[in-house]
Amino acid sequence: MKCISCLEHYESDDAGTCKECYEEANETEEELKREIDDLKAKVAFLRITRSLPTSFSDVVLVASEDASAGSPVPVPAHKAVLVSRSPVFKAMLENEMEESLSGTIKISDVSYDALRAFVSYLYTAEVCLDEDMACNLLVLAEKYQVQHLKVHCEKFLVSKLNWENSVLSYTFAHQHNAKHIIDSALTLITDNMDKLTTREEYVELVEKDPRLVVEIYEAYLSKQVNTAAQKDSSVKT
Amino acid sequence: MKCISCLEHYESDDAGTCKECYEEANETEEELKREIDDLKAKVAFLRITRSLPTSFSDVVLVASEDASAGSPVPVPAHKAVLVSRSPVFKAMLENEMEESLSGTIKISDVSYDALRAFVSYLYTAEVCLDEDMACNLLVLAEKYQVQHLKVHCEKFLVSKLNWENSVLSYTFAHQHNAKHIIDSALTLITDNMDKLTTREEYVELVEKDPRLVVEIYEAYLSKQVNTAAQKDSSVKT
Repeated sequence: MKCISCLEHYESDDAGTCKECYEEANETEEELKREIDDLKAKVAFLRITRSLPTSFSDVVLVASEDASAGSPVPVPAHKAVLVSRSPVFKAMLENEMEESLSGTIKISDVSYDALRAFVSYLYTAEVCLDEDMACNLLVLAEKYQVQHLKVHCEKFLVSKLNWENSVLSYTFAHQHNAKHIIDSALTLITDNMDKLTTREEYVELVEKDPRLVVEIYEAYLSKQVNTAAQKDSSVKT
Repeated sequence: MKCISCLEHYESDDAGTCKECYEEANETEEELKREIDDLKAKVAFLRITRSLPTSFSDVVLVASEDASAGSPVPVPAHKAVLVSRSPVFKAMLENEMEESLSGTIKISDVSYDALRAFVSYLYTAEVCLDEDMACNLLVLAEKYQVQHLKVHCEKFLVSKLNWENSVLSYTFAHQHNAKHIIDSALTLITDNMDKLTTREEYVELVEKDPRLVVEIYEAYLSKQVNTAAQKDSSVKT
């Protein structure tokens, strides 16, 4: 037979689908693509364009880390947007706390660049990430409960995981409650258990936070038990 | 052979794809679905929640049609959002025109319900349509150049087109520059040309705006020429 899709000839053993199913699948694919186009248009529509100086701003955010280097540059924003994106900002601004009355929100331990990227994400759901920026934004996303940004940073950092950065990533993820990174890093670490104890970060972690080391050993043990059980059941069948 | 997808047996004549192409298509479908999930999450994130009384509002919109029935109910909004969604609001609010200074935008010839739905769409890209609401919102979308909403209303109204409403829809679409509706209505009308001249709306349209009637006849003529040309070429081949 000749394959409708790749146009190569194939034998019965390599047969895939009948013509009807092929056509149905094709239609489904077209429908999904149309849905994607619709959703992309919706995202583009819902983005809020920000031109600086931001018009009609009613609040500014200030990176307190920059205070040492002279007067910090404020990042203008809109209360309505902050409140809509973060339950923490919502509580802060709707309850007439200091920040609401003064119109200034101080953000500690963050650089101006990270703060600007954070605020920009709240308006556009877009950001250009490197590992450093992803870590900074994950911290802010966790602190201000911006779940969508947190997931975005976690995905990026998981894609950058390797044996070299696995222990540090694992530690960082624990500090900021980043479940996806913890899981991926644990898999990576327990796959390389023989090399673990020689690493400098391991020695430091035993010193600083031994409970996290215990979690690694527990994950390793549970993996061994699972593997043994699987072998066992495959022998039986 | 047995189809991997529907599990029915089929003959060579009904063969679709080879196994490899089937698996590839399956992967593509999974990828597209993941992309859809990502985009849906982005849309949900970018929506601005509006609770009434809308917090931190800095502008109100007023439906002037309601003025006769006592004091009109203002719809609170945010300049930053209006400016971001509509070039008309942008020009109005950024150039210190009357509306910007007073903080009140009067919208003429619109009901309170339509205005509220219009403003809500600017925040959420969501609206519950019937034909009446779709017409009202299309008019507002055209007036304030909210392209995304206009496309949405046009699609809805095209889906509701039938022979009964075709001439009125065609006239309405012309008044508000709704190209998709014009095209679909013209197809429908020219498919039923024999019945056209008996319709009351047709007689009225000849009276009120004969140029639109000319356009119908031109479309009909061009369709006839095309059909003739197609027949001609199919006879030759």
